[in-house]
Amino acid sequence: MSEAKSLTAPLEPGATIGILGGGQLGRMLAEAAIDLGLKTHIYSDERDAPAFQIADEATYGRYDDEKALEAFARTCAVVTFEFENVPTATAEFLSRLVPMAPSPRALQIAQDRFLEKSFVAGLGIATAAFRDVANEEDARAAFRTLGAAAILKTRRLGYDGKGQQKVRSEDEAARAFVQFGAVPAILEDFVDFSYEASVVAARGRDGAFAAYDPPKNEHENHILRRSTVPSPLQNEKAAEAIVIARRIAEALDYVGVLGVELFVGADGTLTVNEIAPRVHNSGHWTIEACATSQFAQHLRAVAGWPLDDPSRHSDAVMENIIGDEVTSWMGMTEPPEGLHLYGKGEPRPGRKMAHITRTKPRS
Amino acid sequence: MSEAKSLTAPLEPGATIGILGGGQLGRMLAEAAIDLGLKTHIYSDERDAPAFQIADEATYGRYDDEKALEAFARTCAVVTFEFENVPTATAEFLSRLVPMAPSPRALQIAQDRFLEKSFVAGLGIATAAFRDVANEEDARAAFRTLGAAAILKTRRLGYDGKGQQKVRSEDEAARAFVQFGAVPAILEDFVDFSYEASVVAARGRDGAFAAYDPPKNEHENHILRRSTVPSPLQNEKAAEAIVIARRIAEALDYVGVLGVELFVGADGTLTVNEIAPRVHNSGHWTIEACATSQFAQHLRAVAGWPLDDPSRHSDAVMENIIGDEVTSWMGMTEPPEGLHLYGKGEPRPGRKMAHITRTKPRS
Repeated sequence: MSEAKSLTAPLEPGATIGILGGGQLGRMLAEAAIDLGLKTHIYSDERDAPAFQIADEATYGRYDDEKALEAFARTCAVVTFEFENVPTATAEFLSRLVPMAPSPRALQIAQDRFLEKSFVAGLGIATAAFRDVANEEDARAAFRTLGAAAILKTRRLGYDGKGQQKVRSEDEAARAFVQFGAVPAILEDFVDFSYEASVVAARGRDGAFAAYDPPKNEHENHILRRSTVPSPLQNEKAAEAIVIARRIAEALDYVGVLGVELFVGADGTLTVNEIAPRVHNSGHWTIEACATSQFAQHLRAVAGWPLDDPSRHSDAVMENIIGDEVTSWMGMTEPPEGLHLYGKGEPRPGRKMAHITRTKPRS
Repeated sequence: MSEAKSLTAPLEPGATIGILGGGQLGRMLAEAAIDLGLKTHIYSDERDAPAFQIADEATYGRYDDEKALEAFARTCAVVTFEFENVPTATAEFLSRLVPMAPSPRALQIAQDRFLEKSFVAGLGIATAAFRDVANEEDARAAFRTLGAAAILKTRRLGYDGKGQQKVRSEDEAARAFVQFGAVPAILEDFVDFSYEASVVAARGRDGAFAAYDPPKNEHENHILRRSTVPSPLQNEKAAEAIVIARRIAEALDYVGVLGVELFVGADGTLTVNEIAPRVHNSGHWTIEACATSQFAQHLRAVAGWPLDDPSRHSDAVMENIIGDEVTSWMGMTEPPEGLHLYGKGEPRPGRKMAHITRTKPRS
């Protein structure tokens, strides 16, 4: 097994950044690449991936198709990804052929809730109490330890509330484990919080760190509905949240943009919920409201370029347009301001179809 | 000869806007279309047109190739253009097949300096004094009328200082006319001004009008070097400039973004220099510094959508990167912030290769 490739020099204009995944995040990355003079090559196992429409090159292939991955890698100066469920084997295979950022290790940790929580807790950063669950008996034992209300979550492949369930008894914990297919899981203590926030930040290859102003995030049916800046997380508390994100990024030797989701308690206590090793839905407002968007910033980091200014010039509210909602304005004569349509065909329930960012002068 | 088509309803998402011309303006229009959920089809007679890289569809063809134009028109819900030297015959041919905005009439007026100046002067708006020049004797006679210093300009196909020359005598005026190939020209009085400014504004199909804050523009070798907002043109004078642009747009029944270039005299007198019936180089800073860029705004207008908010949230300086300058940072480890590379191959002298917009909080 050969070693992982690393980037020896900043990318030249015209170089190609490969992106694993072709959803709206890949699409907005491809869009941001245009002005930076960088090309993009999207690799996705989805035939109609929205990012295919924007990228310079597109490969439709399975994530275990080594031949297709190899051909993809040959066209790229560096490879990144836009979703955290890229199979570890895919990332490791590619990282031996082409520099990759973030690293397969960051991906591996972030895509497994047990590794992720252990990693964050190991840095002395507060998380919900959690226990590894490998079988029904573990689920029962974990519930006994954690108390009255807990959440069973599969260790892997969860997103937008999929693969998680609130449980209120040992029996419910064991049942949820079985319902999820008896796959490795964790049981997490239920954190009582006042609101949710996130830090979206970038770390460059030179170790530079640049965080956006932390938004407040509101979810509906476990899906992000709205991100708002400025959030109630201000001054020392905002600085504390950013320090947490920075410590995580540094411990991962992270390169690129990451999202750190936090619970904010009524007393201001910050608890890390999740790490997303990629551009983040709660950072979409940075397109309109910041000197540099999270998408351009991620590309800069991945390209080995210096980070750009993340400062926020406007107040902003970003709302996701989910499923059928996207059709509600399609017949209207007034498409909303600040619209970002993702070019997805079918508005399936729960599917993120678009977002809208409304800005106003900084308060 | 059939009538010009007109748009009967606002474009639906997924509809295609055709764009004649494939330079950086077409490229940035295609880029802005992505988030609006609109598709673009670029038609250009340049094989490696920079906008081809971004558009959903691309046609490489001559502007007099009726078969290619017809095929192009069939794919478009509406057609616009990104350069004012689109042949009138092309615009008229297309306008009978597909709605067009701005109209062929606006194009025709703006692309002929004599028609343009006559039109503006006919609205009672100040221009440089001018005379039509059809032959050497006209050139001499015009010089006698206009006085000590004047500029001979070809009526058509001039840009970035091409096709114009300062003349200081009857002989020089006649000589310049011959040097330019004895094509129809005008002689213009030389306007003494303190600085140059422009109004970049949009007019919607509903007659709504939205102007950006007028920048100050600095030229070098007749090519725009720098646009700065805020400019010294403030308050009543800025309002006066915007009223001028609005009157021009209304008189043309204009739809889309237009640029009106102005000379500002030491005493504040405003003189219209040129109308550009398209998105304008002096409006590139709107990408970073405004709620809506001129490119998104133009597409909205052309699509029959309501105009978006043109307000400026940041101060900005836009600089063009011309010719070889583009290579000066290519080997650097620090590609500049606010960079927009146009994806052009060869950095020929005088060729606009990229621009950089630097912003800071609104002063």
